[in-house]
Amino acid sequence: MQAPEEIAKAIQAGDRRALSRAITLVESTRADHRAQARALLRAVEMPGKPALRIGLSGTPGVGKSTFIEAFGLMLIARELRVAVLAVDPSSARSGGSILGDKTRMDLLSRAPEAYIRPSPSRSTLGGVARRTREAILLCEAAGFDVVLVETVGVGQSETMVADMTDAFLLLLAPAGGDELQGVKRGIMEIADMILVNKADGDLKSTAVRTTADYAGALRLLRKRPHDPEGYPRAKPVSATEGHGLEEAWVDLTTLLNWRQAQGIFDQRRAEQATYWFRQEIEEGLRSRFRAAPGVAQQLARLEAQVKTGDITPEDAAEQALEAFMHAKSGLA
Amino acid sequence: MQAPEEIAKAIQAGDRRALSRAITLVESTRADHRAQARALLRAVEMPGKPALRIGLSGTPGVGKSTFIEAFGLMLIARELRVAVLAVDPSSARSGGSILGDKTRMDLLSRAPEAYIRPSPSRSTLGGVARRTREAILLCEAAGFDVVLVETVGVGQSETMVADMTDAFLLLLAPAGGDELQGVKRGIMEIADMILVNKADGDLKSTAVRTTADYAGALRLLRKRPHDPEGYPRAKPVSATEGHGLEEAWVDLTTLLNWRQAQGIFDQRRAEQATYWFRQEIEEGLRSRFRAAPGVAQQLARLEAQVKTGDITPEDAAEQALEAFMHAKSGLA
Repeated sequence: MQAPEEIAKAIQAGDRRALSRAITLVESTRADHRAQARALLRAVEMPGKPALRIGLSGTPGVGKSTFIEAFGLMLIARELRVAVLAVDPSSARSGGSILGDKTRMDLLSRAPEAYIRPSPSRSTLGGVARRTREAILLCEAAGFDVVLVETVGVGQSETMVADMTDAFLLLLAPAGGDELQGVKRGIMEIADMILVNKADGDLKSTAVRTTADYAGALRLLRKRPHDPEGYPRAKPVSATEGHGLEEAWVDLTTLLNWRQAQGIFDQRRAEQATYWFRQEIEEGLRSRFRAAPGVAQQLARLEAQVKTGDITPEDAAEQALEAFMHAKSGLA
Repeated sequence: MQAPEEIAKAIQAGDRRALSRAITLVESTRADHRAQARALLRAVEMPGKPALRIGLSGTPGVGKSTFIEAFGLMLIARELRVAVLAVDPSSARSGGSILGDKTRMDLLSRAPEAYIRPSPSRSTLGGVARRTREAILLCEAAGFDVVLVETVGVGQSETMVADMTDAFLLLLAPAGGDELQGVKRGIMEIADMILVNKADGDLKSTAVRTTADYAGALRLLRKRPHDPEGYPRAKPVSATEGHGLEEAWVDLTTLLNWRQAQGIFDQRRAEQATYWFRQEIEEGLRSRFRAAPGVAQQLARLEAQVKTGDITPEDAAEQALEAFMHAKSGLA
């Protein structure tokens, strides 16, 4: 095992294999790996200029891989280095995520300025959050200018990704008529930009019309008092023809530059860190509670009584909590 | 202080003042009161036939007080005893809730078959949930056939009330055109029935049209696989003229009888109790964590470091949790 400082140096020097191994390390839930991961994260230094962390989601079949490839190559052409992380909280599903999709992003995956990391095969949402945040930090330490965090359209994971990125892109397909494709309102609400893909060929006019519908929906849905006029916004793009990608990037950086100038960018990151701190505490309390000697059996017994109404939820909770507090003092 | 068994007996015998005092007791957060409240809740016996717990919410200005008065009197005319509890999680707002609205429900509040309990003035949502659940139990023990739990339209409190009732009624006003009045989708999703009030006079045809719009929205929004065909449903009512109230009640009891026959009614209550058991544990863990000696100072220091990025959220959480686990519990 290399010293954390050495691994940190290698990552900061641009060593891809060191970065990959480090991400594998933060993905592990083994106690000794967690300790090493924490030591590594303490050792890495963040760059003076922060990477732009961009969340990205899209409905199935919208052409997300094609979009990421085209968008990534456009960024590289602008001399930006791009990391792509995938978040797939459900191990069962494979479609929609870039899990194993490196082959579908052939050009991008071979570009030396890009780094693509598929999501690991097994995971829970809680673990995914921690792992993804840590992988973002590592990519940022490795000097990438843009960290794209891609997720599948399952709702909860979008919110999670939005809570760890600086802006959120939603990629949607052209829709016939005025239907909003069953896009969850909660997801619309977190989007800083909606891009309607496939604005090419026969679908071009539909895509333009759909964009207008979404733009209208965005105006109704939300006001973010601190953002400049016209955000969140919707634009048509064509990933296959490369149209609109530069414009989307300009729009996005205009928003982020504004937020940086206003101090909102840093404030958001501080709030996100605080949020995750609290989430980690809650998760840690839960796991310590469940792991305390004797608590699990108590829980099963009490839950059965609660179900039949033999005990009130609060009485049962009191008993379980007392068992935990006594078990805890025994350990200390 | 009376023995819990005596208070329980008085409540079960229909003593209104005993019920009111008992609800005041469960509303208190004082430790000794909580202990007494728990003893009381252990002592009361639930009736063989459960009360129907009905959640109710509505947009401001929809005529909720008028509706509750008319609906309650209709139930009384059907020889049912009705308790009305109000949940107002925000102490600041007064409009919308029946807080202090007994005077606006003049006839109902004077009926011996009805019991109206305004929400207390100060509260947090967590405390409100426990208190309301316990007040529902007390009203059920007191032999009320229907317990109406009214809340204001703030989103979170509706979900909370839906998680402690057997059915949820949403009262809405007639709207011009096809706009869904900005009713939050999450609230639509928990409604078993939408009643469009003010289906009288000039607004009658608008109310009927609005009802059709909501009925369409409900069909799109949700399928509850266990419910009979046609639920959730939307109907027009006129609280001032008394139209549609009987029909709404028949619709509601048809649904609940179906659920009882299918075993879904009991299953839902068991799931709700389990849910609140888990919530109480989470809340209890949080409060014990915050109250542990030395943890509060640690938290403040760590949170400041997390904000500046000097420590990762997980490292900080680990430190705070270790402090908690090692803190000598004053209680143990």
